[in-house]
Amino acid sequence: MPSDMPLLTDLRRLRVDPEDNLDLSDRATQIDLPGDPSKDEIEAELDRLRGQIGELQDAMFTRREQALLVVLQGMDSAGKDSTTKAVFTGVNPLGIHAASFSVPSVQERRHDFLWRVHAQVPPLGCIGVFNRSHYEEPVIRRVHGELKNGEMKRYLRQIADFEQMLAESGTAIVKCFLHLSFDEQRERLQERIDNPLKHWKFDPSDLQERQFWKSYQAAYSQALAATSTAQAPWYVVPADRKPVRNLIVARLVVQALEALKTPPPDPKPELAGLKVV
Amino acid sequence: MPSDMPLLTDLRRLRVDPEDNLDLSDRATQIDLPGDPSKDEIEAELDRLRGQIGELQDAMFTRREQALLVVLQGMDSAGKDSTTKAVFTGVNPLGIHAASFSVPSVQERRHDFLWRVHAQVPPLGCIGVFNRSHYEEPVIRRVHGELKNGEMKRYLRQIADFEQMLAESGTAIVKCFLHLSFDEQRERLQERIDNPLKHWKFDPSDLQERQFWKSYQAAYSQALAATSTAQAPWYVVPADRKPVRNLIVARLVVQALEALKTPPPDPKPELAGLKVV
Repeated sequence: MPSDMPLLTDLRRLRVDPEDNLDLSDRATQIDLPGDPSKDEIEAELDRLRGQIGELQDAMFTRREQALLVVLQGMDSAGKDSTTKAVFTGVNPLGIHAASFSVPSVQERRHDFLWRVHAQVPPLGCIGVFNRSHYEEPVIRRVHGELKNGEMKRYLRQIADFEQMLAESGTAIVKCFLHLSFDEQRERLQERIDNPLKHWKFDPSDLQERQFWKSYQAAYSQALAATSTAQAPWYVVPADRKPVRNLIVARLVVQALEALKTPPPDPKPELAGLKVV
Repeated sequence: MPSDMPLLTDLRRLRVDPEDNLDLSDRATQIDLPGDPSKDEIEAELDRLRGQIGELQDAMFTRREQALLVVLQGMDSAGKDSTTKAVFTGVNPLGIHAASFSVPSVQERRHDFLWRVHAQVPPLGCIGVFNRSHYEEPVIRRVHGELKNGEMKRYLRQIADFEQMLAESGTAIVKCFLHLSFDEQRERLQERIDNPLKHWKFDPSDLQERQFWKSYQAAYSQALAATSTAQAPWYVVPADRKPVRNLIVARLVVQALEALKTPPPDPKPELAGLKVV
Protein backbone atom coordinates (compact mmCIF):
# COMPACT_ATOMS: atom_id res chain seq x y z
CA MET A 1 0.00 0.00 0.00
CA PRO A 2 2.35 2.77 -1.18
CA SER A 3 1.68 6.33 -0.12
CA ASP A 4 0.22 7.37 -3.47
CA MET A 5 -2.75 5.03 -2.99
CA PRO A 6 -6.34 6.25 -3.25
CA LEU A 7 -6.57 6.74 0.51
CA LEU A 8 -5.08 10.18 -0.09
CA THR A 9 -8.26 11.04 -1.96
CA ASP A 10 -10.20 9.91 1.07
CA LEU A 11 -8.18 12.25 3.26
CA ARG A 12 -9.56 15.18 1.33
CA ARG A 13 -13.04 13.76 1.78
CA LEU A 14 -12.54 13.65 5.54
CA ARG A 15 -11.81 17.34 5.67
CA VAL A 16 -14.39 19.75 7.06
CA ASP A 17 -15.34 22.44 4.59
CA PRO A 18 -16.43 25.61 6.38
CA GLU A 19 -19.03 26.13 3.63
CA ASP A 20 -20.67 22.79 4.58
CA ASN A 21 -23.21 22.81 7.28
CA LEU A 22 -21.36 20.06 9.13
CA ASP A 23 -23.48 17.47 10.87
CA LEU A 24 -21.28 14.80 12.41
CA SER A 25 -24.10 12.27 12.23
CA ASP A 26 -23.64 12.33 8.43
CA ARG A 27 -19.98 11.38 8.76
CA ALA A 28 -18.71 7.79 8.77
CA THR A 29 -17.29 6.33 11.98
CA GLN A 30 -15.73 3.49 10.02
CA ILE A 31 -14.48 3.11 6.46
CA ASP A 32 -12.94 0.37 4.39
CA LEU A 33 -9.45 1.04 3.20
CA PRO A 34 -8.86 0.76 -0.55
CA GLY A 35 -7.52 -2.69 -1.46
CA ASP A 36 -8.87 -4.10 1.82
CA PRO A 37 -5.42 -4.55 3.41
CA SER A 38 -4.86 -7.15 6.13
CA LYS A 39 -4.08 -6.19 9.71
CA ASP A 40 -0.41 -6.98 9.10
CA GLU A 41 -0.33 -4.85 5.97
CA ILE A 42 -1.88 -1.95 7.85
CA GLU A 43 0.65 -2.36 10.67
CA ALA A 44 3.54 -2.44 8.19
CA GLU A 45 2.25 0.71 6.52
CA LEU A 46 1.84 2.44 9.88
CA ASP A 47 5.40 1.49 10.72
CA ARG A 48 6.60 3.03 7.47
CA LEU A 49 4.66 6.23 8.16
CA ARG A 50 6.08 6.44 11.70
CA GLY A 51 9.56 6.27 10.17
CA GLN A 52 8.65 9.05 7.73
CA ILE A 53 7.30 11.24 10.53
CA GLY A 54 10.55 10.77 12.46
CA GLU A 55 12.66 11.71 9.43
CA LEU A 56 10.54 14.72 8.50
CA GLN A 57 10.72 15.97 12.09
CA ASP A 58 14.50 15.51 12.08
CA ALA A 59 14.68 17.71 8.99
CA MET A 60 12.42 20.33 10.57
CA PHE A 61 14.68 20.32 13.63
CA THR A 62 17.81 21.24 11.68
CA ARG A 63 16.31 24.57 10.58
CA ARG A 64 13.94 25.42 13.43
CA GLU A 65 11.83 27.64 11.24
CA GLN A 66 8.60 25.63 11.32
CA ALA A 67 6.58 23.61 13.79
CA LEU A 68 3.58 21.29 13.56
CA LEU A 69 0.70 21.22 16.00
CA VAL A 70 -1.59 18.18 15.91
CA VAL A 71 -4.85 18.59 17.81
CA LEU A 72 -6.68 15.40 18.81
CA GLN A 73 -10.26 15.70 19.99
CA GLY A 74 -12.99 13.11 20.37
CA MET A 75 -15.52 11.63 22.75
CA ASP A 76 -14.28 9.59 25.72
CA SER A 77 -12.58 6.36 24.58
CA ALA A 78 -12.29 7.63 20.98
CA GLY A 79 -8.59 6.85 21.23
CA LYS A 80 -6.76 10.12 21.74
CA ASP A 81 -4.11 8.52 23.96
CA SER A 82 -3.61 5.41 21.89
CA THR A 83 -3.48 7.37 18.62
CA THR A 84 -0.74 9.54 20.12
CA LYS A 85 1.18 6.44 21.09
CA ALA A 86 0.61 4.62 17.79
CA VAL A 87 1.46 7.53 15.50
CA PHE A 88 4.20 9.40 17.33
CA THR A 89 6.24 6.71 19.03
CA GLY A 90 9.27 6.83 16.78
CA VAL A 91 9.85 10.58 16.93
CA ASN A 92 12.97 11.75 18.72
CA PRO A 93 11.70 12.90 22.16
CA LEU A 94 13.75 16.09 21.77
CA GLY A 95 11.54 17.03 18.82
CA ILE A 96 8.09 16.29 20.17
CA HIS A 97 5.99 17.53 23.03
CA ALA A 98 2.66 15.90 23.84
CA ALA A 99 0.36 17.78 26.19
CA SER A 100 -2.79 16.43 27.82
CA PHE A 101 -5.46 18.83 28.98
CA SER A 102 -7.81 17.59 31.66
CA VAL A 103 -10.10 19.52 34.01
CA PRO A 104 -8.53 22.97 34.51
CA SER A 105 -6.85 23.62 37.87
CA VAL A 106 -7.97 26.43 40.17
CA GLN A 107 -5.09 28.58 38.93
CA GLU A 108 -5.85 27.82 35.29
CA ARG A 109 -9.46 28.86 35.81
CA ARG A 110 -8.24 32.29 36.86
CA HIS A 111 -6.88 32.80 33.35
CA ASP A 112 -8.50 32.99 29.94
CA PHE A 113 -9.10 29.54 28.42
CA LEU A 114 -6.23 29.84 25.93
CA TRP A 115 -3.61 30.59 28.59
CA ARG A 116 -2.71 27.03 29.58
CA VAL A 117 -2.90 25.91 25.95
CA HIS A 118 -0.62 28.64 24.65
CA ALA A 119 2.05 27.61 27.18
CA GLN A 120 2.19 24.16 25.54
CA VAL A 121 2.43 24.99 21.84
CA PRO A 122 5.49 23.46 20.15
CA PRO A 123 8.64 25.54 19.63
CA LEU A 124 9.95 25.88 16.07
CA GLY A 125 11.53 22.63 14.94
CA CYS A 126 9.17 20.47 16.96
CA ILE A 127 5.89 18.60 16.75
CA GLY A 128 3.29 19.36 19.40
CA VAL A 129 0.45 16.95 20.11
CA PHE A 130 -2.60 18.17 21.99
CA ASN A 131 -4.47 15.35 23.67
CA ARG A 132 -7.69 17.30 24.19
CA SER A 133 -7.26 21.02 23.72
CA HIS A 134 -8.77 24.49 23.80
CA TYR A 135 -11.89 23.01 22.17
CA GLU A 136 -12.95 21.28 25.40
CA GLU A 137 -13.95 24.46 27.19
CA PRO A 138 -16.52 25.82 24.71
CA VAL A 139 -17.87 22.37 23.79
CA ILE A 140 -18.38 21.14 27.36
CA ARG A 141 -19.86 24.43 28.51
CA ARG A 142 -22.17 24.54 25.52
CA VAL A 143 -23.36 20.96 26.13
CA HIS A 144 -24.16 21.76 29.75
CA GLY A 145 -26.15 24.84 28.87
CA GLU A 146 -23.65 27.33 30.22
CA LEU A 147 -23.18 29.20 26.95
CA LYS A 148 -25.66 31.05 24.81
CA ASN A 149 -25.08 30.74 21.09
CA GLY A 150 -23.47 34.19 20.94
CA GLU A 151 -20.98 33.24 23.66
CA MET A 152 -20.18 29.98 21.88
CA LYS A 153 -19.52 31.92 18.68
CA ARG A 154 -17.23 34.30 20.51
CA TYR A 155 -15.15 31.37 21.85
CA LEU A 156 -14.89 29.91 18.36
CA ARG A 157 -13.80 33.23 16.89
CA GLN A 158 -11.15 33.54 19.61
CA ILE A 159 -9.92 30.05 18.77
CA ALA A 160 -9.78 30.81 15.07
CA ASP A 161 -7.84 34.03 15.74
CA PHE A 162 -5.40 32.21 18.05
CA GLU A 163 -4.77 29.46 15.52
CA GLN A 164 -4.31 31.98 12.73
CA MET A 165 -1.67 33.75 14.79
CA LEU A 166 0.15 30.44 15.41
CA ALA A 167 0.02 29.60 11.71
CA GLU A 168 1.35 33.03 10.79
CA SER A 169 4.20 32.47 13.26
CA GLY A 170 5.41 29.30 11.53
CA THR A 171 3.28 26.55 13.07
CA ALA A 172 1.32 24.33 10.74
CA ILE A 173 -1.83 22.94 12.33
CA VAL A 174 -3.75 19.72 11.70
CA LYS A 175 -6.84 18.97 13.75
CA CYS A 176 -8.28 15.45 13.97
CA PHE A 177 -11.71 14.71 15.36
CA LEU A 178 -11.65 11.00 16.23
CA HIS A 179 -15.20 10.16 15.28
CA LEU A 180 -16.64 7.27 17.29
CA SER A 181 -20.12 5.73 17.11
CA PHE A 182 -22.39 5.59 20.14
CA ASP A 183 -22.34 1.78 19.98
CA GLU A 184 -18.57 1.53 19.77
CA GLN A 185 -18.22 3.79 22.79
CA ARG A 186 -20.50 1.43 24.73
CA GLU A 187 -18.24 -1.50 23.84
CA ARG A 188 -15.10 0.34 24.86
CA LEU A 189 -16.40 1.63 28.17
CA GLN A 190 -17.79 -1.82 28.96
CA GLU A 191 -14.39 -3.33 28.21
CA ARG A 192 -12.79 -0.91 30.66
CA ILE A 193 -15.23 -2.14 33.30
CA ASP A 194 -14.98 -5.85 32.51
CA ASN A 195 -11.17 -5.97 32.37
CA PRO A 196 -9.69 -5.21 35.81
CA LEU A 197 -6.39 -4.26 34.16
CA LYS A 198 -8.24 -1.39 32.46
CA HIS A 199 -10.01 -0.10 35.56
CA TRP A 200 -7.40 2.62 35.94
CA LYS A 201 -8.63 4.10 32.66
CA PHE A 202 -12.25 4.17 33.74
CA ASP A 203 -13.71 7.44 34.93
CA PRO A 204 -17.32 7.32 36.22
CA SER A 205 -17.92 10.77 34.71
CA ASP A 206 -17.57 9.15 31.26
CA LEU A 207 -20.95 7.46 31.83
CA GLN A 208 -22.54 10.77 32.76
CA GLU A 209 -21.16 12.56 29.72
CA ARG A 210 -22.34 9.70 27.51
CA GLN A 211 -25.90 10.74 28.31
CA PHE A 212 -25.24 14.03 26.52
CA TRP A 213 -24.06 12.26 23.34
CA LYS A 214 -26.36 14.12 20.94
CA SER A 215 -25.56 17.50 22.46
CA TYR A 216 -21.85 16.75 22.13
CA GLN A 217 -22.24 15.81 18.47
CA ALA A 218 -24.12 19.07 17.87
CA ALA A 219 -21.61 21.22 19.76
CA TYR A 220 -18.67 19.58 17.98
CA SER A 221 -20.40 19.97 14.61
CA GLN A 222 -20.70 23.68 15.26
CA ALA A 223 -17.15 24.04 16.60
CA LEU A 224 -15.50 22.12 13.78
CA ALA A 225 -17.41 23.93 11.07
CA ALA A 226 -16.57 27.34 12.53
CA THR A 227 -12.83 26.70 12.94
CA SER A 228 -11.84 24.57 9.96
CA THR A 229 -9.69 26.95 7.96
CA ALA A 230 -7.12 26.55 5.21
CA GLN A 231 -4.36 27.10 7.76
CA ALA A 232 -5.88 24.92 10.50
CA PRO A 233 -8.21 22.37 8.90
CA TRP A 234 -10.31 19.82 10.77
CA TYR A 235 -10.53 16.22 9.62
CA VAL A 236 -13.27 13.89 10.80
CA VAL A 237 -11.36 10.63 11.29
CA PRO A 238 -13.45 7.44 11.37
CA ALA A 239 -12.40 5.98 14.72
CA ASP A 240 -14.41 2.81 15.28
CA ARG A 241 -11.55 0.69 13.93
CA LYS A 242 -8.31 1.48 15.67
CA PRO A 243 -5.80 0.45 12.96
CA VAL A 244 -7.67 2.48 10.32
CA ARG A 245 -7.88 5.47 12.64
CA ASN A 246 -4.14 5.32 13.37
CA LEU A 247 -3.29 5.00 9.70
CA ILE A 248 -5.40 8.00 8.72
CA VAL A 249 -3.93 10.22 11.41
CA ALA A 250 -0.40 9.12 10.50
CA ARG A 251 -1.09 9.97 6.84
CA LEU A 252 -2.47 13.37 7.78
CA VAL A 253 0.65 14.09 9.80
CA VAL A 254 2.99 12.96 7.01
CA GLN A 255 1.04 15.07 4.54
CA ALA A 256 1.27 18.14 6.78
CA LEU A 257 5.00 17.69 7.34
CA GLU A 258 5.65 17.13 3.64
CA ALA A 259 3.71 20.29 2.84
CA LEU A 260 6.28 22.27 4.86
CA LYS A 261 8.87 21.39 2.20
CA THR A 262 11.66 21.89 4.73
CA PRO A 263 14.86 22.64 2.80
CA PRO A 264 18.09 20.89 3.87
CA PRO A 265 20.20 22.78 6.41
CA ASP A 266 22.20 25.70 5.01
CA PRO A 267 25.97 25.23 4.81
CA LYS A 268 28.06 27.91 6.50
CA PRO A 269 30.75 28.98 4.00
CA GLU A 270 32.83 30.59 6.77
CA LEU A 271 33.69 27.10 8.07
CA ALA A 272 35.60 26.12 4.91
CA GLY A 273 39.09 24.88 5.70
CA LEU A 274 38.78 25.25 9.48
CA LYS A 275 40.92 22.72 11.37
CA VAL A 276 40.20 21.60 14.93
CA VAL A 277 43.31 21.27 17.07
CA MET B 1 23.36 -10.93 24.25
CA PRO B 2 20.59 -11.46 26.83
CA SER B 3 20.16 -8.94 29.61
CA ASP B 4 21.84 -11.14 32.22
CA MET B 5 25.15 -10.89 30.39
CA PRO B 6 28.31 -9.69 32.15
CA LEU B 7 27.80 -6.12 30.95
CA LEU B 8 25.59 -5.65 34.01
CA THR B 9 28.68 -6.15 36.11
CA ASP B 10 30.35 -3.43 34.10
CA LEU B 11 27.48 -1.07 34.85
CA ARG B 12 28.39 -1.22 38.53
CA ARG B 13 31.99 -0.51 37.62
CA LEU B 14 30.93 2.61 35.74
CA ARG B 15 29.27 4.04 38.81
CA VAL B 16 30.89 6.91 40.72
CA ASP B 17 31.49 6.05 44.35
CA PRO B 18 31.45 9.17 46.50
CA GLU B 19 34.26 7.65 48.60
CA ASP B 20 36.47 7.55 45.50
CA ASN B 21 38.47 10.59 44.71
CA LEU B 22 37.12 10.63 41.17
CA ASP B 23 39.52 11.66 38.46
CA LEU B 24 37.86 11.37 35.07
CA SER B 25 41.22 10.93 33.37
CA ASP B 26 41.39 7.49 35.05
CA ARG B 27 38.09 6.45 33.49
CA ALA B 28 37.79 4.70 30.13
CA THR B 29 36.29 6.55 27.18
CA GLN B 30 35.84 3.28 25.34
CA ILE B 31 35.32 -0.32 26.39
CA ASP B 32 34.89 -3.65 24.66
CA LEU B 33 31.56 -5.31 25.22
CA PRO B 34 31.67 -8.87 26.56
CA GLY B 35 31.39 -11.39 23.73
CA ASP B 36 32.55 -8.76 21.24
CA PRO B 37 29.11 -8.42 19.57
CA SER B 38 28.81 -7.22 15.97
CA LYS B 39 27.25 -3.88 15.08
CA ASP B 40 24.04 -5.66 14.07
CA GLU B 41 23.92 -7.56 17.35
CA ILE B 42 24.37 -4.35 19.31
CA GLU B 43 21.62 -2.68 17.27
CA ALA B 44 19.28 -5.63 17.87
CA GLU B 45 19.97 -5.51 21.58
CA LEU B 46 19.38 -1.76 21.66
CA ASP B 47 16.10 -2.30 19.88
CA ARG B 48 15.08 -4.84 22.50
CA LEU B 49 16.00 -2.45 25.31
CA ARG B 50 14.03 0.36 23.68
CA GLY B 51 11.00 -1.92 23.67
CA GLN B 52 11.54 -2.70 27.34
CA ILE B 53 11.83 0.98 28.23
CA GLY B 54 8.54 1.64 26.43
CA GLU B 55 6.78 -1.17 28.28
CA LEU B 56 8.16 -0.23 31.67
CA GLN B 57 7.11 3.38 31.13
CA ASP B 58 3.61 2.22 30.13
CA ALA B 59 3.38 0.33 33.43
CA MET B 60 4.61 3.36 35.39
CA PHE B 61 1.98 5.48 33.63
CA THR B 62 -0.95 3.34 34.82
CA ARG B 63 -0.20 4.10 38.49
CA ARG B 64 1.40 7.54 38.32
CA GLU B 65 3.21 7.07 41.60
CA GLN B 66 6.78 7.14 40.31
CA ALA B 67 8.84 9.00 37.75
CA LEU B 68 12.32 8.66 36.29
CA LEU B 69 14.70 11.50 35.59
CA VAL B 70 17.67 10.78 33.33
CA VAL B 71 20.36 13.45 33.33
CA LEU B 72 22.77 13.52 30.38
CA GLN B 73 25.93 15.58 30.68
CA GLY B 74 29.12 15.57 28.67
CA MET B 75 31.52 17.70 26.70
CA ASP B 76 30.39 19.17 23.38
CA SER B 77 29.76 16.43 20.79
CA ALA B 78 29.75 13.71 23.48
CA GLY B 79 26.38 12.66 22.10
CA LYS B 80 23.73 13.96 24.45
CA ASP B 81 21.25 14.59 21.61
CA SER B 82 21.91 11.39 19.75
CA THR B 83 21.80 9.28 22.90
CA THR B 84 18.40 10.76 23.71
CA LYS B 85 17.21 9.88 20.24
CA ALA B 86 18.73 6.39 20.22
CA VAL B 87 17.55 5.34 23.67
CA PHE B 88 14.16 7.00 24.05
CA THR B 89 12.63 6.89 20.60
CA GLY B 90 10.07 4.19 21.24
CA VAL B 91 8.54 5.69 24.36
CA ASN B 92 4.97 6.95 24.10
CA PRO B 93 5.34 10.75 23.77
CA LEU B 94 2.63 11.17 26.41
CA GLY B 95 4.98 9.50 28.90
CA ILE B 96 8.25 11.29 28.20
CA HIS B 97 9.46 14.84 28.33
CA ALA B 98 12.93 15.73 27.08
CA ALA B 99 14.27 19.16 28.04
CA SER B 100 17.35 20.85 26.63
CA PHE B 101 19.08 23.53 28.62
CA SER B 102 21.22 25.99 26.71
CA VAL B 103 22.52 29.40 27.70
CA PRO B 104 20.05 30.84 30.25
CA SER B 105 17.77 33.63 29.06
CA VAL B 106 17.72 37.07 30.66
CA GLN B 107 14.63 36.10 32.64
CA GLU B 108 16.14 32.78 33.75
CA ARG B 109 19.24 34.60 35.01
CA ARG B 110 17.01 36.59 37.34
CA HIS B 111 16.16 33.36 39.16
CA ASP B 112 18.21 30.86 41.13
CA PHE B 113 19.92 28.29 38.88
CA LEU B 114 17.51 25.48 39.79
CA TRP B 115 14.37 27.44 38.85
CA ARG B 116 14.28 26.64 35.14
CA VAL B 117 15.34 23.07 35.80
CA HIS B 118 12.67 22.43 38.43
CA ALA B 119 9.98 23.55 35.97
CA GLN B 120 11.00 20.69 33.65
CA VAL B 121 11.15 17.70 36.01
CA PRO B 122 8.89 14.82 34.93
CA PRO B 123 5.45 14.40 36.48
CA LEU B 124 4.67 11.06 38.18
CA GLY B 125 4.17 8.36 35.59
CA CYS B 126 6.66 9.88 33.15
CA ILE B 127 10.29 9.79 32.12
CA GLY B 128 12.16 13.07 32.01
CA VAL B 129 15.38 13.45 30.03
CA PHE B 130 17.66 16.38 30.74
CA ASN B 131 19.88 17.19 27.79
CA ARG B 132 22.38 19.25 29.79
CA SER B 133 21.10 20.23 33.20
CA HIS B 134 21.62 22.10 36.45
CA TYR B 135 25.24 20.88 36.38
CA GLU B 136 26.17 23.27 33.58
CA GLU B 137 26.03 26.39 35.73
CA PRO B 138 28.53 25.42 38.43
CA VAL B 139 30.84 23.57 36.04
CA ILE B 140 31.06 26.33 33.43
CA ARG B 141 31.45 29.05 36.03
CA ARG B 142 34.12 27.06 37.84
CA VAL B 143 36.05 26.46 34.62
CA HIS B 144 36.03 30.16 33.82
CA GLY B 145 37.28 31.15 37.23
CA GLU B 146 34.03 32.70 38.41
CA LEU B 147 33.65 30.45 41.45
CA LYS B 148 35.87 29.96 44.43
CA ASN B 149 36.01 26.43 45.75
CA GLY B 150 33.61 27.26 48.59
CA GLU B 151 31.05 28.63 46.13
CA MET B 152 31.42 25.55 43.96
CA LYS B 153 30.80 23.35 46.98
CA ARG B 154 27.71 25.34 47.89
CA TYR B 155 26.28 24.80 44.39
CA LEU B 156 26.98 21.08 44.64
CA ARG B 157 25.31 20.85 48.05
CA GLN B 158 22.26 22.67 46.67
CA ILE B 159 22.12 20.22 43.78
CA ALA B 160 22.39 17.22 46.11
CA ASP B 161 19.60 18.62 48.32
CA PHE B 162 17.38 19.29 45.30
CA GLU B 163 17.90 15.80 43.91
CA GLN B 164 17.25 14.25 47.31
CA MET B 165 13.94 16.10 47.51
CA LEU B 166 12.97 14.84 44.04
CA ALA B 167 13.89 11.27 44.99
CA GLU B 168 11.91 11.51 48.21
CA SER B 169 8.93 12.72 46.15
CA GLY B 170 8.86 9.62 43.95
CA THR B 171 11.35 10.42 41.19
CA ALA B 172 14.16 7.97 40.58
CA ILE B 173 17.26 9.61 39.15
CA VAL B 174 20.01 8.26 36.93
CA LYS B 175 22.82 10.52 35.81
CA CYS B 176 25.05 9.68 32.87
CA PHE B 177 28.28 11.48 32.12
CA LEU B 178 29.04 10.74 28.47
CA HIS B 179 32.80 10.46 28.72
CA LEU B 180 34.58 11.43 25.52
CA SER B 181 38.29 11.55 24.78
CA PHE B 182 40.01 14.73 23.65
CA ASP B 183 40.98 13.03 20.38
CA GLU B 184 37.48 11.78 19.67
CA GLN B 185 36.09 15.26 20.22
CA ARG B 186 38.54 16.59 17.65
CA GLU B 187 37.27 14.03 15.11
CA ARG B 188 33.65 14.88 15.77
CA LEU B 189 34.03 18.64 15.62
CA GLN B 190 36.10 18.30 12.45
CA GLU B 191 33.37 16.14 10.91
CA ARG B 192 30.83 18.87 11.69
CA ILE B 193 33.05 21.31 9.81
CA ASP B 194 33.89 19.05 6.88
CA ASN B 195 30.32 17.91 6.23
CA PRO B 196 28.15 20.86 5.09
CA LEU B 197 25.03 18.94 6.16
CA LYS B 198 26.33 19.08 9.74
CA HIS B 199 27.20 22.78 9.74
CA TRP B 200 23.95 23.55 11.55
CA LYS B 201 25.28 21.58 14.52
CA PHE B 202 28.53 23.49 14.67
CA ASP B 203 28.89 26.23 17.25
CA PRO B 204 32.15 28.23 17.13
CA SER B 205 32.09 28.45 20.93
CA ASP B 206 32.73 24.69 21.01
CA LEU B 207 36.28 25.38 19.82
CA GLN B 208 36.81 27.97 22.55
CA GLU B 209 35.54 25.66 25.27
CA ARG B 210 37.73 22.85 23.95
CA GLN B 211 40.75 24.91 25.05
CA PHE B 212 39.55 24.48 28.64
CA TRP B 213 39.39 20.68 28.35
CA LYS B 214 41.49 19.90 31.43
CA SER B 215 39.63 22.40 33.58
CA TYR B 216 36.33 20.86 32.49
CA GLN B 217 37.54 17.37 33.37
CA ALA B 218 38.59 18.63 36.80
CA ALA B 219 35.34 20.50 37.43
CA TYR B 220 33.25 17.54 36.33
CA SER B 221 35.35 15.18 38.46
CA GLN B 222 34.59 17.33 41.48
CA ALA B 223 30.89 17.73 40.63
CA LEU B 224 30.25 14.05 39.95
CA ALA B 225 32.06 12.89 43.07
CA ALA B 226 30.15 15.32 45.28
CA THR B 227 26.70 14.48 43.93
CA SER B 228 26.77 10.74 43.24
CA THR B 229 24.43 9.39 45.90
CA ALA B 230 22.52 6.14 46.37
CA GLN B 231 19.34 7.92 45.25
CA ALA B 232 20.91 9.83 42.37
CA PRO B 233 24.04 8.01 41.21
CA TRP B 234 26.40 9.14 38.48
CA TYR B 235 27.71 6.74 35.86
CA VAL B 236 30.73 7.54 33.71
CA VAL B 237 29.65 6.17 30.34
CA PRO B 238 32.46 5.49 27.84
CA ALA B 239 31.28 7.56 24.88
CA ASP B 240 33.92 7.29 22.16
CA ARG B 241 31.94 4.51 20.44
CA LYS B 242 28.38 5.54 19.82
CA PRO B 243 26.68 2.10 19.75
CA VAL B 244 28.37 1.08 23.02
CA ARG B 245 27.43 4.39 24.64
CA ASN B 246 23.80 3.99 23.58
CA LEU B 247 23.64 0.43 24.81
CA ILE B 248 25.05 1.31 28.22
CA VAL B 249 22.65 4.21 28.73
CA ALA B 250 19.72 2.05 27.62
CA ARG B 251 20.74 -0.64 30.11
CA LEU B 252 21.04 1.90 32.91
CA VAL B 253 17.56 3.18 32.12
CA VAL B 254 16.06 -0.33 32.02
CA GLN B 255 17.78 -1.15 35.29
CA ALA B 256 16.42 2.00 36.95
CA LEU B 257 12.88 1.36 35.70
CA GLU B 258 13.00 -2.29 36.78
CA ALA B 259 14.16 -1.24 40.22
CA LEU B 260 10.90 0.70 40.64
CA LYS B 261 9.07 -2.66 40.66
CA THR B 262 5.87 -0.94 39.51
CA PRO B 263 2.93 -3.17 40.52
CA PRO B 264 0.12 -3.74 37.99
CA PRO B 265 -2.78 -1.26 38.18
CA ASP B 266 -5.22 -1.82 41.06
CA PRO B 267 -8.67 -3.13 40.13
CA LYS B 268 -11.62 -1.10 41.40
CA PRO B 269 -14.07 -3.55 43.02
CA GLU B 270 -16.88 -0.99 42.85
CA LEU B 271 -17.03 -1.46 39.06
CA ALA B 272 -18.12 -5.12 39.32
CA GLY B 273 -21.26 -5.84 37.31
CA LEU B 274 -21.66 -2.29 35.98
CA LYS B 275 -23.35 -2.20 32.56
CA VAL B 276 -22.92 0.67 30.08
CA VAL B 277 -26.15 1.61 28.33
